[in-house]
Amino acid sequence: MALAGGHRAKKGILERLDSGEVVVGDGSFLLTLEKRGYVKAGLWTPEAVIEHPNAVRQLHMEFLRAGSNVMQTFTFSASEDNMESQWEAVNAAACDIAREVAGKGDALVAGGLCQTSLYKHLKDEERIKNLFRLQLEVFVRKNVDFLIAEYFEYAEEAVWAVEVLKESGKPVAATMCIGPEGDMHGRTPGECAVKLVKAGASIIGVNCRFGPWTSLKTMRLMKEGLQAAGLKAHLMVQSLVFHMPDCGKGGFVDLPEYPFALEPRVATRWDIQKYAREAYNLGVRYIGGCCGFEPYHIRAIAEELAPERGFLPPASEKHGSWGSGLNMHTKPWIRARARREYWENLLPASGRPFCPSLSKPDV
Amino acid sequence: MALAGGHRAKKGILERLDSGEVVVGDGSFLLTLEKRGYVKAGLWTPEAVIEHPNAVRQLHMEFLRAGSNVMQTFTFSASEDNMESQWEAVNAAACDIAREVAGKGDALVAGGLCQTSLYKHLKDEERIKNLFRLQLEVFVRKNVDFLIAEYFEYAEEAVWAVEVLKESGKPVAATMCIGPEGDMHGRTPGECAVKLVKAGASIIGVNCRFGPWTSLKTMRLMKEGLQAAGLKAHLMVQSLVFHMPDCGKGGFVDLPEYPFALEPRVATRWDIQKYAREAYNLGVRYIGGCCGFEPYHIRAIAEELAPERGFLPPASEKHGSWGSGLNMHTKPWIRARARREYWENLLPASGRPFCPSLSKPDV
Amino acid sequence: MALAGGHRAKKGILERLDSGEVVVGDGSFLLTLEKRGYVKAGLWTPEAVIEHPNAVRQLHMEFLRAGSNVMQTFTFSASEDNMESQWEAVNAAACDIAREVAGKGDALVAGGLCQTSLYKHLKDEERIKNLFRLQLEVFVRKNVDFLIAEYFEYAEEAVWAVEVLKESGKPVAATMCIGPEGDMHGRTPGECAVKLVKAGASIIGVNCRFGPWTSLKTMRLMKEGLQAAGLKAHLMVQSLVFHMPDCGKGGFVDLPEYPFALEPRVATRWDIQKYAREAYNLGVRYIGGCCGFEPYHIRAIAEELAPERGFLPPASEKHGSWGSGLNMHTKPWIRARARREYWENLLPASGRPFCPSLSKPDV
Amino acid sequence: MALAGGHRAKKGILERLDSGEVVVGDGSFLLTLEKRGYVKAGLWTPEAVIEHPNAVRQLHMEFLRAGSNVMQTFTFSASEDNMESQWEAVNAAACDIAREVAGKGDALVAGGLCQTSLYKHLKDEERIKNLFRLQLEVFVRKNVDFLIAEYFEYAEEAVWAVEVLKESGKPVAATMCIGPEGDMHGRTPGECAVKLVKAGASIIGVNCRFGPWTSLKTMRLMKEGLQAAGLKAHLMVQSLVFHMPDCGKGGFVDLPEYPFALEPRVATRWDIQKYAREAYNLGVRYIGGCCGFEPYHIRAIAEELAPERGFLPPASEKHGSWGSGLNMHTKPWIRARARREYWENLLPASGRPFCPSLSKPDV
Repeated sequence: MALAGGHRAKKGILERLDSGEVVVGDGSFLLTLEKRGYVKAGLWTPEAVIEHPNAVRQLHMEFLRAGSNVMQTFTFSASEDNMESQWEAVNAAACDIAREVAGKGDALVAGGLCQTSLYKHLKDEERIKNLFRLQLEVFVRKNVDFLIAEYFEYAEEAVWAVEVLKESGKPVAATMCIGPEGDMHGRTPGECAVKLVKAGASIIGVNCRFGPWTSLKTMRLMKEGLQAAGLKAHLMVQSLVFHMPDCGKGGFVDLPEYPFALEPRVATRWDIQKYAREAYNLGVRYIGGCCGFEPYHIRAIAEELAPERGFLPPASEKHGSWGSGLNMHTKPWIRARARREYWENLLPASGRPFCPSLSKPDV
Repeated sequence: MALAGGHRAKKGILERLDSGEVVVGDGSFLLTLEKRGYVKAGLWTPEAVIEHPNAVRQLHMEFLRAGSNVMQTFTFSASEDNMESQWEAVNAAACDIAREVAGKGDALVAGGLCQTSLYKHLKDEERIKNLFRLQLEVFVRKNVDFLIAEYFEYAEEAVWAVEVLKESGKPVAATMCIGPEGDMHGRTPGECAVKLVKAGASIIGVNCRFGPWTSLKTMRLMKEGLQAAGLKAHLMVQSLVFHMPDCGKGGFVDLPEYPFALEPRVATRWDIQKYAREAYNLGVRYIGGCCGFEPYHIRAIAEELAPERGFLPPASEKHGSWGSGLNMHTKPWIRARARREYWENLLPASGRPFCPSLSKPDV
Repeated sequence: MALAGGHRAKKGILERLDSGEVVVGDGSFLLTLEKRGYVKAGLWTPEAVIEHPNAVRQLHMEFLRAGSNVMQTFTFSASEDNMESQWEAVNAAACDIAREVAGKGDALVAGGLCQTSLYKHLKDEERIKNLFRLQLEVFVRKNVDFLIAEYFEYAEEAVWAVEVLKESGKPVAATMCIGPEGDMHGRTPGECAVKLVKAGASIIGVNCRFGPWTSLKTMRLMKEGLQAAGLKAHLMVQSLVFHMPDCGKGGFVDLPEYPFALEPRVATRWDIQKYAREAYNLGVRYIGGCCGFEPYHIRAIAEELAPERGFLPPASEKHGSWGSGLNMHTKPWIRARARREYWENLLPASGRPFCPSLSKPDV
Repeated sequence: MALAGGHRAKKGILERLDSGEVVVGDGSFLLTLEKRGYVKAGLWTPEAVIEHPNAVRQLHMEFLRAGSNVMQTFTFSASEDNMESQWEAVNAAACDIAREVAGKGDALVAGGLCQTSLYKHLKDEERIKNLFRLQLEVFVRKNVDFLIAEYFEYAEEAVWAVEVLKESGKPVAATMCIGPEGDMHGRTPGECAVKLVKAGASIIGVNCRFGPWTSLKTMRLMKEGLQAAGLKAHLMVQSLVFHMPDCGKGGFVDLPEYPFALEPRVATRWDIQKYAREAYNLGVRYIGGCCGFEPYHIRAIAEELAPERGFLPPASEKHGSWGSGLNMHTKPWIRARARREYWENLLPASGRPFCPSLSKPDV
């Protein structure tokens, strides 16, 4: 199968989705750059785009190589309420880096913003919309290709974000960080989906907070909600990389391992191939990842869906499909692992016999 | 505590160790760059130094920021038998990248070589030594600060490597990839240690193949072997990051999860702080990591031993000791995690109730 | 606290429950006698009452000592469709044994029957009711104190059983082997409860097929169903002893471990104390066990509820509450286990690191 | 295969073993009767033989039916130091019950005694031997068929027991409760075995304290010790039923689950078939169980070795080999379990995802 070339003219996000293409999203920035030494856990702010642009650029490059079609600006929490005067420079620098890397392949730039710190305690629509509008102005000035409103716990605040972003005339995607139980006001995923589409989002779905299988369950409920309401939208999923069947309504932050002991829960590349396939079968066509998704996880999405897309991502030059790179190994029992059935059926051990399989959420 | 400055004059490796300093090694290149998309599993060769120098440079930078005092050239398996005509350019480029990054902080450059593909079937001392000598010539030309012979399954071949490297007059470290059961010829860790020191290694120990606790057990046996023989050497450990109590004599390659489903076994930063402390207590003063050690794991070594060393690594500006970065969180149950006792005592769940805790090695 | 005396005049089952007394049921016969060598797995028939009456009598005695107030005749599946001509002698012998043992303490005799093998494929009300009536005639002749219709997968067949048993004028209890998803026709637990009470059952609930916590969840749904319908009945629970959070709608028979590898799932006595307490708090007053409940599990119910009942069962003369019998041990770390907090908080290991925590049901 | 008849003339224990027969031991009395309500945990004394003879008789009967060739008197700890004046009556009653049941099948009566409470603190050979001699006098008076000295932590005390028991002229078996690390004085299993044989034991081995696989490892060391010393003896193993790979030198009493939360560790019948086979292959010909071995576990030994012995035990009339009793089940997925490969390969789940696989011993 051919590796993806970057020479075709770039189509817009809706052009791609409308024509039935699979769009591969990117992966984890905050958690990954925390592990690389550039983001502080607890704050979770993206000042690295200014302080260490090479580190951010490199991570974008890795996702591009892995097959991402979207370079989302690293602007999570980069609104005025979280970053004070720094916010504008951060948003601008993040756009420049994303654009620079996107130019090296077949990727679009998406300007991303998320829920504010204000909504929970102060439901001031005007003030919150103004925060969104400030970020949007930078995105418009830098001429991003489309916009993503992500990580919303409340449908109402997400709707406000969509309404602001729509003012730009650019396509808007909106994802909430909810599970099957719905948003923090008790709205079901189906109700949330309907609100987002009615507000003007062309692409809706979920990101973060829940593991792959739980997120797909939520997607199914969103899809059913739209169908019941007679609405249509493109579906998008960017779940956590972590296995989290033990999550409660609040998702991974309530599990005792968050955020410094999540290692045993990280999905393998094979788990992510399965996630990509199930998402595809469900009708989701914008498939990426959130916290914990490393470049090789994104590559797994691109490899799983290569038959549908017709090409492999650049980083597959360094990856044998289904472990085939092991077939030259000197030890016969390792060569025996160079096949799909092996990895699909393996139940990987934790190496931690004194630890449990599941935890109880703190709330 | 002050962050590490880079302004002091650099002392040589033996000068540091002789004066009792802790030297923090670097971490994983092959497995980490595989996940980032630049190394092919199965081949495990470092052509990325030529193909994607920015990716290699960035990883070096991350380890430097995390506190590494050694930039080991990314030349694993880069001998003529594995890489044909490419070998020389790879070795030279790797030296240049390591030197460039080392210059940005308090780190030395170590030229690294490993066991050949020949020894197992063809114990031709002259031919094998010649392979080592070719790599050494590049290291000498590039004037690395010291040399590391690593990942040897057989003491005899390791001795040959040490003998060749000693010809340069530079300090030589030698680590074997063995566990408590010793080398593949049945030599105990104590016997291996004695051979390496007698051959001229100033620093000896283990790297790769086994998890933190097993590697420290091997180190204890090496130390006892040297003591019994009345010999002295500096001790060095660079274990895997994976929890692997279920390893057999051959180490991690024989476990069914190798190399594509090791995720659930990855140690947390807290596990690695414990490893660093135990290594220190055992008298090991060169402490780093091998496959799977990400920058934050190396930072954990530097943070654990900051009291002894008197300073924190640069990347600690983005890390609150023992989770203290969480103490500003809005949710009280997450703030409650901002303390040492919490993370030291947490038993992290795998999130995989259908998987076992341990596996049986294939051999 | 005083041990239970047997000298009080016996009150009937409804007299007890109406006055707010806790009635402790008995435990496992089929699975327990299978392990003792007297019942054949797969057939699960009670011919042992004739072949090995001492073995059956002894088990009754153990439950009586453990605190059971009910000696249920060992007549499970002892209807004509399963046991041919043997059925009548088995029912009669079972009544005699139960009566003999009940006479040695404060226990009543309950005649028990269960679903037929016919209903699933042949919903012939007349024929099925006739099978029930045959068993009932023996129970009436032997003058049992009350009747239990148990282990029904379908509310309709359970209703037929209740209707037949009511003909005797004796109090009737009815328990279904359903979980929170309801009966095999899709009736909810609440709907099932309502049907049983309307048919004339004075005591309703669940037995078998599901673990303690799942069974209590079903009980809650039954209770809510009755409340919503404005009906009243006494509640009764006799769950499996096995931890089975991984059950599907069909319960334990669909798990791959059924019936010969359920050992790792057996609840401890402390788990059962918690089950008894939760059942009590839910308003259930007839609390016993089904498959896997050994005499010490029944004793755990009686000990947990001793404060409410005012007495301990006879077998508590051989049991120190919450492990207090260990406080004379010579080893201090074992003496340290002689306290409630220790056993309440212990997370017992399986000793099986190569096994998973959960299984997937076969259907 | 024929079920065992009881009509053959009884051969003595040595006659059987000398001719190569497999002798099936009995199982658990203390832990099993604790669960039935007749033994107090912590004290672990056998006053039940007087207080509740029917309960003890019934358990003997179950082991006889399961295939035991030995009815060991229930006289564990029944020496004067533990039971004061009651000791003599207990020993006498225990002999009578064992003899009565043995008479119903092909079983011998073995008088059993164990280590004293005195040895650890007061190594008074004369006094301890006198305690043994008192018990022996009852065994001789009751004319048991042979003698077993069991559950010794110290080889020296076990030797004293053997020396006393040999005075009777009856065959003597001696088992220690040690693991591969040897006795509490640091004597290896091999050294212990040699001492016991030199003292006059015809049958030696281990019982209690360790799980099946650990006990077999100890047996191998004992066998090798005897071989190295040029000695011969019959080998005997009666391990715990519990999976305990996490035991330390002190065995199961040091694990946090002892004695009230061992449930998840109980071996299945299939595990015990494997244990019986491995014991047989190692040359052990007296194979039974200790704490936790229920009648069906003993039957599993007898069934596994039925091909060698030529007959099945009586209780196999209620057991289909390798689950064959399920082949009449109405559900096809349960019928599919009626085969050896299924049960041999099943990895049973604990149903406890919040619990670990292994524990750390308290010492």
